[in-house]
Amino acid sequence: MNLVSELGKILPKGRVSAGEDELKRHGGGFFTYHAPHLPDAVVFPRNREEVLEVLRFADERGVPVVPFGQGSSLEGHTVPVRGGISLDMNGMDEILEIRPDDFLARVQPGVTHGKLNAALAEHGLLFPVDPGWDAAIGGMAGTNASGTNAVRYGVMRDQVLGLEVALPGGTVMRTGGLAMKSSAGYGLTGLFVGSEGTLGVFTELILRLYPIPTRILAARAVFGGIEEAAGAAVAIIRSGMKIGRVELVDARTVEAVNAYKGTDYAVEPTLFLEFSGGEGGVEEDVAKAREIARSNGSLTFEFEEDEAAREKLWEARHEAGLAIQNLNPEKSPMSTDVCVPISELPGALGHARDAIASRGLDGAILGHVGDGNYHAVFPVDRDDEEDLRRAEEVNAEIVDYALARGGTSTGEHGIGSGKMRHLQREHGDSLAFMLGIKGLADPNGIMNPGKIFASAEGARELSGESY
Amino acid sequence: MNLVSELGKILPKGRVSAGEDELKRHGGGFFTYHAPHLPDAVVFPRNREEVLEVLRFADERGVPVVPFGQGSSLEGHTVPVRGGISLDMNGMDEILEIRPDDFLARVQPGVTHGKLNAALAEHGLLFPVDPGWDAAIGGMAGTNASGTNAVRYGVMRDQVLGLEVALPGGTVMRTGGLAMKSSAGYGLTGLFVGSEGTLGVFTELILRLYPIPTRILAARAVFGGIEEAAGAAVAIIRSGMKIGRVELVDARTVEAVNAYKGTDYAVEPTLFLEFSGGEGGVEEDVAKAREIARSNGSLTFEFEEDEAAREKLWEARHEAGLAIQNLNPEKSPMSTDVCVPISELPGALGHARDAIASRGLDGAILGHVGDGNYHAVFPVDRDDEEDLRRAEEVNAEIVDYALARGGTSTGEHGIGSGKMRHLQREHGDSLAFMLGIKGLADPNGIMNPGKIFASAEGARELSGESY
Repeated sequence: MNLVSELGKILPKGRVSAGEDELKRHGGGFFTYHAPHLPDAVVFPRNREEVLEVLRFADERGVPVVPFGQGSSLEGHTVPVRGGISLDMNGMDEILEIRPDDFLARVQPGVTHGKLNAALAEHGLLFPVDPGWDAAIGGMAGTNASGTNAVRYGVMRDQVLGLEVALPGGTVMRTGGLAMKSSAGYGLTGLFVGSEGTLGVFTELILRLYPIPTRILAARAVFGGIEEAAGAAVAIIRSGMKIGRVELVDARTVEAVNAYKGTDYAVEPTLFLEFSGGEGGVEEDVAKAREIARSNGSLTFEFEEDEAAREKLWEARHEAGLAIQNLNPEKSPMSTDVCVPISELPGALGHARDAIASRGLDGAILGHVGDGNYHAVFPVDRDDEEDLRRAEEVNAEIVDYALARGGTSTGEHGIGSGKMRHLQREHGDSLAFMLGIKGLADPNGIMNPGKIFASAEGARELSGESY
Repeated sequence: MNLVSELGKILPKGRVSAGEDELKRHGGGFFTYHAPHLPDAVVFPRNREEVLEVLRFADERGVPVVPFGQGSSLEGHTVPVRGGISLDMNGMDEILEIRPDDFLARVQPGVTHGKLNAALAEHGLLFPVDPGWDAAIGGMAGTNASGTNAVRYGVMRDQVLGLEVALPGGTVMRTGGLAMKSSAGYGLTGLFVGSEGTLGVFTELILRLYPIPTRILAARAVFGGIEEAAGAAVAIIRSGMKIGRVELVDARTVEAVNAYKGTDYAVEPTLFLEFSGGEGGVEEDVAKAREIARSNGSLTFEFEEDEAAREKLWEARHEAGLAIQNLNPEKSPMSTDVCVPISELPGALGHARDAIASRGLDGAILGHVGDGNYHAVFPVDRDDEEDLRRAEEVNAEIVDYALARGGTSTGEHGIGSGKMRHLQREHGDSLAFMLGIKGLADPNGIMNPGKIFASAEGARELSGESY
């Protein structure tokens, strides 16, 4: 079968490409250590009907389909590890409807959060989920992404009120709706959110919106050690104040950021904080946070007074991953993504720092510590088995530490190809049920094969396998 | 088979009853128009192992199992419409762990929200979901309950971080965990929450907690018409202020409350409001809300200054359902539960009022209008077909109105036996998928049969049926 010419028969002109550049662009994430693998064709659908045509075609022939947004997954989600079709959703990037009075928007999956927020600004509204990259909403829903705002607003699963999903059989399912809550049947919206493209293709999403806070203050608190910084974060959360963001960066991350962004932040473990709200209350919260930071050993606590300094701060934080990467441009980043109950955070960060040091790795630690989620980032040479093995070992140790304390192996990046073994350890007793659901939606296994579950058989094999 | 003696063989003494009083107590909800149906036996398990024993026993023999908490469902969830075992979970009512620093608790399903909050108070913590009745947490998770606090804190699905579920095959599945967020595999926690006892039995729940607000103000705003009251609620929500509760009661509900509680609230459409937060900001919000209410035609806006008056106000609101029932003690309440995008609320309430009036029904309207959810309550004589038919007609019209505007047939009560036809209209294209999931968890169909789906066959029949 000539995939490209067959697809060309069922789709309008210009929708299919097998050009070398396009295959390459869709063959590997640009921010991941996962080895690339080329698709056999890239399809650029423009509407739901075209998505359905592709799915029917692929389902009949057993051709893998891998949804593609901005390609910014950290766990290899968009790598077509078994070839087939990379379904590039960027041609479906319309904001279909903004309902300011209902705090709702309907969007196509290719819309990025940056584009959406630009359109929302004139209504005084905000879509708060902000992974570091300007990712596509469809992909963000696929991995249940979150980011720095999650401590205040929650994750993608909290924001998606409804979905239109195209299924392999060529049918469409609509879940949820425009109501803020519903108890009508099983909660399918939250099941599809986080399914990593393994069940179907999102063709439309209904999103919850929020008012833009009228008052925002940012601050940096510098500490002598990572555990002190984490301790202050825990105490701030425990105080019950309405914090906007609590981000921790270790000294190595600050060093990377300074080199990449030309900043001169003190090279010490630091909390980046944001306080926001209506007119009242913000100053009180800031004063309380400063006091908590001090009693947890902060060396300095500085405000970013003006908007420019504040934006620079958050830009630095958002690009911290790129900055770390930039220190080792010839290597690729492997990132852990554990999330622990917040009281376990200081111990977890101390453990991660020691585990990294004991292997002599160049690892940086940063994270959304307000909800117990942090990342240890190791630049690895993916062609160097020894380098990969050491990083994988530390990664597994960090996951072990989290799982032993009721935490999760992935707070926001998803399983992808990178954490399948960890998922087995974390949710071994529900993996067969998850696979059953996969079988209902995608009986021929065409949707993003090799992600979450190595395969139906592979997953069963894994259950007998120790890490 | 003698069910009681067979069950007696596999369970410790005293766990099984077929006494007339117990069968009757477990045969019908006390606050619903659904006809009762007796179970064949009531089982009172004390731990997970006993639940698993019962499930294995029942699954092998095809005996229905209906989980039972406080029996306060409004849609007949706990009525064993096909007999079998009523599984009374009140013997599993331990608060297993409170982790104040993590804002988490682990509880058994029989714990009520009142009991939990009493234990949390000493830690300054709150579990916010408050259906009118002091329901069991297991049942509340079963229907994805919410109540007056949902506009601020969200619904049960937002609060349950993890579950231990006993499945019909006698196995246990653990979903989620102690982390505030996770992207590890499919989102099963939110799938089981709201599954109305049709998939398995919750044996443990991990719940999210919140700090008790330090400052609370309550107010009543009286309006000349229900649409004006709703308009004010919409405008208050649209202003973006952090409102605690926005409850609407119509004149008939106020009349019922006055009669039942001995209050003397003005017999007009009224908003019950609560503002809460830290020290700052609450007064500003109240002033803004008062201004909004005035510009939407409020007749009066009064504070409930002291705690006693405030408690009386919320007690009155919580018992409004009982108060309406009390006006017609010989009848049983049927309650609609639609939820619409909030901008549609004034129109929806006006429509409901007119639909009730046009049929000459004695219906009262009340609801959690901050999130677009409201109830029209009709006292019906369940033995009078004409009475039932008229109420069902208005109920269906109210659902039609909501569905045509992207709303849902049930915001918080669930489908149960009462809304199966509405579910077909609302989610007809995903019903087969839901049934597939049911088949994975409960292949022999023993779990709460006759709820959500009339039956596998029945559900398919329904798809060809117009209402």
